[in-house]
Amino acid sequence: MTIKEEARLLKADAPYLANSTHEERNQALDNMAKKLREHKAAIFAANEKDLARARENELPPALIKRLIFDETKFTETLAGLTSLQNMPDPLGKELLRRQLDDGLILIQESCPIGVLGVIFEARPDALIQITALCIKSGNAVILKGGSEAAESNRIIFHLLYQAALDAALPEHCMALAETHSEIKELLSCHEEVDLLVPRGSNAFVQYIMENTRIPVLGHADGICHIYVDCSADLEQSIGIIVDAKTQYPAACNAVETVLVHEDLAETLLPLLSLALKESGVRIRGTEAVQEYIDCELANEADFSTEYSDLILTLALIRDCNQAIKHINHYGSHHTDAILAEDQTTINSFLHLVDSASVYVNCSTRFADGYRYGFGAELGISTGKLHVRGPAGLEALLTYKYKLSGQGHTVADYAEGRKQFHFEDLNL
Amino acid sequence: MTIKEEARLLKADAPYLANSTHEERNQALDNMAKKLREHKAAIFAANEKDLARARENELPPALIKRLIFDETKFTETLAGLTSLQNMPDPLGKELLRRQLDDGLILIQESCPIGVLGVIFEARPDALIQITALCIKSGNAVILKGGSEAAESNRIIFHLLYQAALDAALPEHCMALAETHSEIKELLSCHEEVDLLVPRGSNAFVQYIMENTRIPVLGHADGICHIYVDCSADLEQSIGIIVDAKTQYPAACNAVETVLVHEDLAETLLPLLSLALKESGVRIRGTEAVQEYIDCELANEADFSTEYSDLILTLALIRDCNQAIKHINHYGSHHTDAILAEDQTTINSFLHLVDSASVYVNCSTRFADGYRYGFGAELGISTGKLHVRGPAGLEALLTYKYKLSGQGHTVADYAEGRKQFHFEDLNL
Repeated sequence: MTIKEEARLLKADAPYLANSTHEERNQALDNMAKKLREHKAAIFAANEKDLARARENELPPALIKRLIFDETKFTETLAGLTSLQNMPDPLGKELLRRQLDDGLILIQESCPIGVLGVIFEARPDALIQITALCIKSGNAVILKGGSEAAESNRIIFHLLYQAALDAALPEHCMALAETHSEIKELLSCHEEVDLLVPRGSNAFVQYIMENTRIPVLGHADGICHIYVDCSADLEQSIGIIVDAKTQYPAACNAVETVLVHEDLAETLLPLLSLALKESGVRIRGTEAVQEYIDCELANEADFSTEYSDLILTLALIRDCNQAIKHINHYGSHHTDAILAEDQTTINSFLHLVDSASVYVNCSTRFADGYRYGFGAELGISTGKLHVRGPAGLEALLTYKYKLSGQGHTVADYAEGRKQFHFEDLNL
Repeated sequence: MTIKEEARLLKADAPYLANSTHEERNQALDNMAKKLREHKAAIFAANEKDLARARENELPPALIKRLIFDETKFTETLAGLTSLQNMPDPLGKELLRRQLDDGLILIQESCPIGVLGVIFEARPDALIQITALCIKSGNAVILKGGSEAAESNRIIFHLLYQAALDAALPEHCMALAETHSEIKELLSCHEEVDLLVPRGSNAFVQYIMENTRIPVLGHADGICHIYVDCSADLEQSIGIIVDAKTQYPAACNAVETVLVHEDLAETLLPLLSLALKESGVRIRGTEAVQEYIDCELANEADFSTEYSDLILTLALIRDCNQAIKHINHYGSHHTDAILAEDQTTINSFLHLVDSASVYVNCSTRFADGYRYGFGAELGISTGKLHVRGPAGLEALLTYKYKLSGQGHTVADYAEGRKQFHFEDLNL
């Protein structure tokens, strides 16, 4: 079957999945945990095949590390399934109950989005997490994992799918795409798929965004800034900057550019330079920075570059206003921080920086669904519509309006025989 | 200045508009009302010029009716400004306040989307309403009204803009596009404009959706259905169907297809046919329908047609399940109603029909922001993300996350020296 045909079947079944009970969806999650436990040895064997091929092809160590599905990750993933089961039903929540007039009641109620397409990295645990999030929220899903994990994904998908069927969920509640060419096919399914969530490299996400009419949740660039104000605590600032750059340099929320208030040039720059170099960070500084420390020369292009590596751009800046303008111009509206003690300056930064997450005196690396307490994370959005920033279960929901009357017609209101009497009933 | 250049200036000033106080934004609305009152005669004179040209060009009466800006519409529009002023500040609302750990506080706070592009019909009062909604919610806006209202729009825009400046709002808070070619230019501003709201014909909205990378709020088709179940009250049903078809046939929420349970063929069809014909409605029925009443023959294409006219497709259907499948297949996910007394059937329809608004025993024509009690309506969305159904002030808002720490680094948590202690502080 082609992806388009699968997508059509998923779309037709999606309303029935949306109408499943919380007990059925939780039963599916429970079945999934049981199936995974029962077939653990087979899953590990499949994962070994993926790993052997990855080593043979000399894939980078970071990729191999993500590809490994071992006892520790297995236990963590199953704990994630349990905590998702314990969460309340996200569907059918009344967001509004309003009487429009006698006997005419409007209810706004949460419901699933419908059919999702999720494209994710070669991580077998991600397949389980994403499926579980979709099933908990009543969404049908087309899954495309990194091909390096093909063997692991295939066996895990079949176990999860069987678990869903055993809980009496509709036949077409999930599908697995296995080849790269199916991604292109998926991009053309704008009549069947309601939302695409691509995770991966900037170039890949950018490609997705430019080649589909389906709404996309995600981010391409992650050019995050830290501005160190003249009122900052210097020692604390150095610790935060080193963490934001080095704790996981490949992450989208790692800092790329540090803007330092010019009054701190003499005091902060030498100390910061020392600390960064000790952590293996290469500094690219502007000419003004080079007057204070020894470093490579930064050019205009560096301000727009996500290094995803142990490289940092450093610039001196006149004041907080100039920092705000720089960040709004060069940034990617992802996560930007101010290090300062002066409350007026802090407030101005928080209000005027146009980013999904704006931070005070802490590391940009906190921008993450798990660290925000959302349970699991589907992705991080730099778009401003629907969801912004780290996106958890909420991102998989929409709502519908239900209006219930007793023969009410609009002509009565348009021609003045009746008037609306709005009254909110759930406040 | 080109629209692109204007958009760039608006984008640069948008954070400062977002940071304006509620008093300043309300002062701008107050100034707008004053300016409009002071220059009422000049506005009416400009509107007369538009009307004279429209009559000269023999534009349709419905268009001319919308184009008229008279004493009645003036008073209504000014009342709208006042009621908007009386609404609480939509910005800076705390949607979440969560302690992640000691001294690390996450706040999710409402804020404006940024820069909007709104393309609307030739209605001078719409220009005022849309501008007022944008200013109240701190959004910069590029306005493009129907060219038939060019003279009215020009004078009104300049008055509103002056009113905004007098309230100390940023210089680049609003712009007027006057020519059709500027729409094309606007569509290419995906780096400057955060959201497009096109209102107008299906073909026009479809064109916009297919020719821009900017997110679009709106709907192309409005193919709304009414299903009459065998448990329905017949007399009430006829009243609702006549209203849904005839009260304003050009509206997107007018009914296009009525599906009748086959058990009602003999009783309902003759009565319904009579009532519809008395209201001037042409019926296109399936072959099965033609066995009971005299009407034109409907073909497959009729099920996908938005007539926007006094024409109705009529079909017999086996049961509610078949009706649900028909609606999910042929509908546009806008507004669909069931007429029934049996509660199980009603619930199944409400849950399984995948539309923004699902109704019981009332006319589809209620799908409207004003009738939902939202104050003003920006548009109706058939998309499922961000906003669904009639969209008011809420559609103009997003949020940002503010995280405030005391030197917190991620390494402490990743390496086990600290644990998160999530606690919601605003529940």
